[in-house]
Amino acid sequence: MIMPERQQHAASIITIGDELLIGQVIDTNSAWMAQELNKNGIAVKRRVAVGDSWDEIWRALDEESLHASIILITGGLGPTADDITKPLLCRYFDGKMTVNQGALDNVKHIFETVLKRPAGERNLKQAEVPDNCNVILNKRGTAPGMWFEKNGKVFVSMPGVPHEMKGMMTDDVIPALLKKFSFPVIAHRTLLTAGIGESVLADLIQPWEENLPPHVKLAYLPNYGMVRLRLSISGNGKASVIGEIDQYFTELQQLVRDYMVTNADEPLEVVVGKLLLERNQTMATAESCSGGYIAHLITSIPGSSAYYEGSLVTYSYKAKETLLGVDEHTLIDEGAVSEEVVRQMVRGALDKLNTDYAVAVSGIMGPDGGTPEKPVGTVWVAVANREKIITKKLYFRFDRQRNIQLTSVSALNMLRLLILESGASPTQ
Amino acid sequence: MIMPERQQHAASIITIGDELLIGQVIDTNSAWMAQELNKNGIAVKRRVAVGDSWDEIWRALDEESLHASIILITGGLGPTADDITKPLLCRYFDGKMTVNQGALDNVKHIFETVLKRPAGERNLKQAEVPDNCNVILNKRGTAPGMWFEKNGKVFVSMPGVPHEMKGMMTDDVIPALLKKFSFPVIAHRTLLTAGIGESVLADLIQPWEENLPPHVKLAYLPNYGMVRLRLSISGNGKASVIGEIDQYFTELQQLVRDYMVTNADEPLEVVVGKLLLERNQTMATAESCSGGYIAHLITSIPGSSAYYEGSLVTYSYKAKETLLGVDEHTLIDEGAVSEEVVRQMVRGALDKLNTDYAVAVSGIMGPDGGTPEKPVGTVWVAVANREKIITKKLYFRFDRQRNIQLTSVSALNMLRLLILESGASPTQ
Repeated sequence: MIMPERQQHAASIITIGDELLIGQVIDTNSAWMAQELNKNGIAVKRRVAVGDSWDEIWRALDEESLHASIILITGGLGPTADDITKPLLCRYFDGKMTVNQGALDNVKHIFETVLKRPAGERNLKQAEVPDNCNVILNKRGTAPGMWFEKNGKVFVSMPGVPHEMKGMMTDDVIPALLKKFSFPVIAHRTLLTAGIGESVLADLIQPWEENLPPHVKLAYLPNYGMVRLRLSISGNGKASVIGEIDQYFTELQQLVRDYMVTNADEPLEVVVGKLLLERNQTMATAESCSGGYIAHLITSIPGSSAYYEGSLVTYSYKAKETLLGVDEHTLIDEGAVSEEVVRQMVRGALDKLNTDYAVAVSGIMGPDGGTPEKPVGTVWVAVANREKIITKKLYFRFDRQRNIQLTSVSALNMLRLLILESGASPTQ
Repeated sequence: MIMPERQQHAASIITIGDELLIGQVIDTNSAWMAQELNKNGIAVKRRVAVGDSWDEIWRALDEESLHASIILITGGLGPTADDITKPLLCRYFDGKMTVNQGALDNVKHIFETVLKRPAGERNLKQAEVPDNCNVILNKRGTAPGMWFEKNGKVFVSMPGVPHEMKGMMTDDVIPALLKKFSFPVIAHRTLLTAGIGESVLADLIQPWEENLPPHVKLAYLPNYGMVRLRLSISGNGKASVIGEIDQYFTELQQLVRDYMVTNADEPLEVVVGKLLLERNQTMATAESCSGGYIAHLITSIPGSSAYYEGSLVTYSYKAKETLLGVDEHTLIDEGAVSEEVVRQMVRGALDKLNTDYAVAVSGIMGPDGGTPEKPVGTVWVAVANREKIITKKLYFRFDRQRNIQLTSVSALNMLRLLILESGASPTQ
C-alpha cells in the first residue's frame, strides 16, 4: 500500500494574489480543488499562496515541481494590471506570446452574446497566450486556461474566479490528468457525531484506532460543537480499497453509534431534510438572534421547498408580537431572551406556517447587549411538534458570527432528535 | 521605500492538517492571521498548507525559515492521535518534552470550571511541551501555544481552533513580535464599486495607475458582481506613509466616484445599515429564493436591530399568501417568480413590519426548477418605500450558493440606491 503523500504523482496547488496575503479574501478555491482531486485519486501534497510578485511566483513553481508531478495554479489571469502570471509563465516555459484564435473567438462571443457590449482592448488581450501551452477554453469567462509540460511534470494555470476555475477543472483538467497519469485509489468515509467532545470520543475509539494498519488513517474534524470523523485508505485496486474501507467504516460506526448524526459526508441540514422527506412532514423556523441563518442553512439545500415552509425572522419586539403572537407582557416581564418567549415563538411558527415541526431561537449574540443575568452568548432554543415543546438554554463564548452558527446548528440538532423520538421513519 | 515582499522581517504562515489537503475544511485561519499581521505592519510572504505528515511539516519549517523571519504555525495540537506537530517541534528544536505547570493548571481550570468534568489523561498530556520554548497560555482552550527561536528566526505554534488562535495572536504573539522586530509601515485603503465591470473600471483608472510610483500598489478584487479596489503603500515613517496614501486614495476616489459604494473596507450590508441609521429609518425583507440570506447578511452586523425589523422568509406559495398577503390568483397566473408577486411581497413586508423600506426577492436558484420561459437563475427583485416601488429582473448563471449570494447583494444595492435617491442624509 502506498501512502497518499508518498505517491509519485501528487499535486500541489499554488494560488496567486496579494489579496490572499493581506487576508482580504478567504481562499475557497484550493479547498474545492483538493476535494475534487482527492475524489479522483489524485493526492494533494501542499497548498501554497503567494502574492503578485514575480520572484515569489517563480520560486513557488520551482519548489513545488521538485516534489509534485502536477502543479495547479489559480489566480493572476484577470484583465487588470495587477496580474503578472501570464508573462511569467511565458518566460518560465521559454515561450512567446501569441494570439490564440479559439480564446479570441470566446472573448468576442462572451461580450457579444452575454454581456451585450463590445470587448475592450484589455479583454481581447486575454486571448494572448504563450505559444508552448495547450489552451483550455474558458466556457464561463474570458481568461483561457493554460496547460504546460516540462520534464514530465504538468503545470496548469487557471483563472481565480471560482466558477470559471471549477468548470475548467471538471470539464478538462481532471479528465486530462486521469488520461496522462495513473493514480492509486484513495477512498474516504466520513461520519458526523454530536453530543460528545473530541477527547472523550478519542478515548472511546483509541483501542480500535491503535490497531489500524498504517495505510488506514483516521482524522478528527471538530466543527460547530460537533466532531466529524474521516477514515481514509489508499491502495491500488478499486474493489479491494472499497471493500477494505467499508469494513473498517462499519466497525467505526458501531463504536460511535450512540453519538452518530449521519454516516455520510453531509451537513446536519441535509440530515434533517431527509428525515422530514421520509416522513412527508414539514417545518418552519422563528428566528431572533440567528437572524435568518437557520433558514439560510435549510434553503441552501436544493429541494428544501418540499419540507420547508419559511421563517419568521423577528428581530424586534414588535415583530415578535405582530408576526408570531408573542405576548407583550411576557416580553416586558421576562425579556426577549427567555424560555417563555421561545415557547410562544415556536407555537407562533407552528400556527402561522401550519407545519409539523418548528424551531425558535432567541439570544444575545454580541459583542454588546449582555447583562449580568444574561451575558453575551446566552440563547434559548425551543423545538416543537403538535404534541410537545422542548426548550433548552445554551451558552456560547465566541464571536458574533460563531455564536450565530453554533446557535443554528444546536437548534437543528435538537429538531433532529425530536423528529427521531417522534416515531420511526414510515419507510423503515 | 521598501516593497512589502522584499522586506527583511516578513512572516510565513504554515497551516497543518490532512483535512486542508482533501478540502474538507476551508482555511479561514490564515486569512485572519494575514489581516492582523498586515494591520501591524508585518508583511506576509507566503501561506503554506501541509498534511499531518512528519516529512512535509519538517520540510515546510526548513523552507519557510529560509525566506521569512517569522514562521507562524497553526493546527496539529489537538488532543487526538492524528496530531504529530508537538513531538516534531520538540525534535526540530532539539528539546525534551516536559510538563509545563502553567499549562497544566490551565487544562485543569478549564475542565473544572467551564466543562464541569474531570480532565482525561489525553487532556492533561496537552500540558507537555518542549523544554526550549516559551509557553503561550491558552485562555480559551487546553492546547498551549509555543514560541521557539533559532538563528534569529521566530517560530510560533498555535492551536488550529479559530477563537483560540485569534486570542493568542491578539493578546500575546503580535505584541511580542512588535517588541522583538521593527517593521516598516504598511497602509491599505479600500473602496467598493458597483455597476461597472473589472475591465471597464481598469480602462477608467489606467492612465492614473500607470503613473503610480512602484511602492504604491493597486489591486482589483472582484466579488459578487462588485469590484473592490485596494491601494497599498509601504514605507518607514507612519506619518509620511499615511499622508501619501491619503493623497493617492483621494485621487482614486475622484476617478471612480460614479460607481463608488463606500470608501471603507466594509461590506454592502454595513453601508446600507449606516444610511438607515443616519436617517433614523428602518427596513424589512421578504425573501423567497434567497431563503433568509439577506436577513443573515444584515443581522451579521452588530447593532442591526436599530434599523432592521425582520424578514418574512416565505418559501412556499401558502406562506407568501398567509404572511405577506400575496394574492393566490397572481401566484397561479403569473407564477411566484414574477414582477407582480415581488411587488405584492414588498408591499406586504412594508405593511406587516411597518418599516420605511423593504426588499423582496423571488427567483429560481437551481440546480432544478427552471423552465424555458424562466430558466434557473431568473430573479425578480423589488425595493420600496412608502412612495415608490422599483422592480428589476435579474439573471445569474452560477451554482445555487452563488446565485443566492448574488441575488442578496444585488437586492441590497438596489435598496442602497433607493435610500440615496429618497433624500440626502439629515446629518449632511
